[in-house]
Amino acid sequence: VSVRAGILITGTEVLSGIIADRNGPWLSERLRERGVEVAEIVVVADRRDDMLAALRFMSRLDLVVTSGGLGPTADDLTAEVVADFTGRPLALDSELEARIWTILERMRSRWRNLDEDAIRASNRKQALVPDGATVLEPVGTAPGLVVPGAPTVVVLPGPPRELQPMWEVALETPALAEVLERAGTYEQRILRLFGIPESEIARSLREIEAAGVPIEQLEITTCLRRGEIEIATVFEPRAAEVYDAFEDAIRARHRDTLFSDDGSTVDDQVISALAGRTVAVAESCTGGLMSARLTERAGSSDYMLGGLVVYSNEAKIALAGVPAELIETHGAVSPPVAAALADGACERLGAAVGIGITGIAGPGGGTEEKPVGTVCLSVAVAGGERWDRTVLLPGDRQTIRERTTTVVMHGLRRMLREAAAVRRA
Amino acid sequence: VSVRAGILITGTEVLSGIIADRNGPWLSERLRERGVEVAEIVVVADRRDDMLAALRFMSRLDLVVTSGGLGPTADDLTAEVVADFTGRPLALDSELEARIWTILERMRSRWRNLDEDAIRASNRKQALVPDGATVLEPVGTAPGLVVPGAPTVVVLPGPPRELQPMWEVALETPALAEVLERAGTYEQRILRLFGIPESEIARSLREIEAAGVPIEQLEITTCLRRGEIEIATVFEPRAAEVYDAFEDAIRARHRDTLFSDDGSTVDDQVISALAGRTVAVAESCTGGLMSARLTERAGSSDYMLGGLVVYSNEAKIALAGVPAELIETHGAVSPPVAAALADGACERLGAAVGIGITGIAGPGGGTEEKPVGTVCLSVAVAGGERWDRTVLLPGDRQTIRERTTTVVMHGLRRMLREAAAVRRA
Repeated sequence: VSVRAGILITGTEVLSGIIADRNGPWLSERLRERGVEVAEIVVVADRRDDMLAALRFMSRLDLVVTSGGLGPTADDLTAEVVADFTGRPLALDSELEARIWTILERMRSRWRNLDEDAIRASNRKQALVPDGATVLEPVGTAPGLVVPGAPTVVVLPGPPRELQPMWEVALETPALAEVLERAGTYEQRILRLFGIPESEIARSLREIEAAGVPIEQLEITTCLRRGEIEIATVFEPRAAEVYDAFEDAIRARHRDTLFSDDGSTVDDQVISALAGRTVAVAESCTGGLMSARLTERAGSSDYMLGGLVVYSNEAKIALAGVPAELIETHGAVSPPVAAALADGACERLGAAVGIGITGIAGPGGGTEEKPVGTVCLSVAVAGGERWDRTVLLPGDRQTIRERTTTVVMHGLRRMLREAAAVRRA
Repeated sequence: VSVRAGILITGTEVLSGIIADRNGPWLSERLRERGVEVAEIVVVADRRDDMLAALRFMSRLDLVVTSGGLGPTADDLTAEVVADFTGRPLALDSELEARIWTILERMRSRWRNLDEDAIRASNRKQALVPDGATVLEPVGTAPGLVVPGAPTVVVLPGPPRELQPMWEVALETPALAEVLERAGTYEQRILRLFGIPESEIARSLREIEAAGVPIEQLEITTCLRRGEIEIATVFEPRAAEVYDAFEDAIRARHRDTLFSDDGSTVDDQVISALAGRTVAVAESCTGGLMSARLTERAGSSDYMLGGLVVYSNEAKIALAGVPAELIETHGAVSPPVAAALADGACERLGAAVGIGITGIAGPGGGTEEKPVGTVCLSVAVAGGERWDRTVLLPGDRQTIRERTTTVVMHGLRRMLREAAAVRRA
């Protein structure tokens, strides 16, 4: 790899573990897509010495991207510390000062109690630019910077809604473009599999390599995400045939579990396979998460009618129309009750497709016969196909609840696709 | 601050942004509680040179805690790199090797296809210990290490379910105990407020300091978490009176918005204020998240009966019994519809307390009169008190949906507490 980068995240709240850092992972994925090897992500507080120490640690790299510390207050130090680190003195950019002032004027109604002198002073601070740096225009009120050199330093604001669009602008600057050009052009592909342990993929990689596919020409990362396995591969255009051979080998070995080779998620595929049909849910142990997942996207009212969260047995009977005898005979967590929930969801909401979920999310409530993690699932097309499954999911309460929604999405996907195939045949 | 620490997270998936790091924030909070100042969290891949560079960068600190890289495979390098860094040669601990073997034997049924030589080799690798280090017994299969020195290095495994219990064991080792003793004894307090902008708290801090409370003796961190403001303060026992004066001043200024001074969350307080009464939900824009929040905890079936996710107007009418005329006259997002949803939830599920939510989560669907973020909320005690509110929440679809559940929890808390106060009076 010819270009290596470091990411520096500043902010006391992130370092304290109080808020989660979203910028480090996001920037890491953006760099990786462009063939840059990320050497490290470093999180430091807004302390001058630690920031400078971290930048010096990164001086062995080709590129440094920073996030945060560009605000108007005294503990916003990034521009100043980067100027120190790169040995480029700060100078006031009066035109930038005027442009920031225009933004601040628009926001002044929120600040009735601040005096104008204080605002002017922080305005001036935000318009101090290291000699030779390119200014990235503010998305919020803080400008970013691209400082050429070895390493080249890209300085971005902390809020993700400002950082992400500003990164796109930074890509157009000559200094960053030059570094990325050295990294060459890269392709990225993602394969997604469901229903297979990660160790099986590790074994396939070893065996595919042993069979003569030179996968050392590919940078392959596998990981478990939301219960699915994701194989993300970055490669140079000249390795395209190697990648194709690799993907073919994975497909041949894991035809049943590979569900996406084009970046689509199972949610994308379910929405497309619904093809305008409506869906409804009757769920117990997931307590609303299945409905929440189906309403996550804008426009979900096109297919999602609603759901019944039937936590108590009384609610299962009264709201979803599950026969009381069914619960008495088989227990609330049983395949017949899951099927009755799916049918009840269809019927009560007038949906084309119903989903029924009942299980034991724990930590209490498990028995030898039905341990914690036992979940009975059912997906039914009104008057047509069905998919019924009982699974035993590992993990804690939260994991079991979330993982259940993924298993259901895959059941739904499989059922809708198979039904479509039968209709086509 | 007398003791400073660095946290080193190893793992290609974390660095690639593919999985979120949970250990860095967790360890940071544990260290901070003990009065240790965390200088940085560094995330690196499983690459020898970068790991060693990161450890050298941290050699200015008193304590380094690492996570990950203790597994049996070739890219698990942490013990080896730490031995290099501390200049302590590795030696085989045969008794440890035997103890790990016992654990592996128990798991062997999962590994039908691995040959015994390979397992023996990785077993031996995991039993290599730097000279003078204390071994932390495996929680999974990997042992941890405490290596005394300057800095003292604590080596922990990557999976949080192994790292967290092993940290407790590490606290008992003489080398770590000695470092933490130098940090002194610290108290930590958390205040939580709701319904106030973060800038107001920043202003209060300035004014409390100006009024003569020496808050520089306290380490105060404020942050916005799940729509609430959290003020976390760490202080030495001799500053206890300063802390009390600070808390009194915050209480005097923010009596209406301060809801917790004992570490309890609004969820804790709502569950306790329900005092055995049952609750049910009828929700539209939150799509199941309100029910999911009320069923997050083990034992939630004691108070949560269930919910209706009434995304379509038809579902609002058929499932929650909202009169169709109400929707026609006032629109689906309106206070009367929210109230009817709360009443419908009570009635249909036979609950003591009903929650109704209807709003516009966006990004589409907003109008000038009812912009995106408009949410109408209602909480009703069957035949008794009610709390009704229309709010305008900022942020994207996901933020609006999540924030709505927080606003409702606070409405529920306030209503239950005020009703209890009236009954007591």
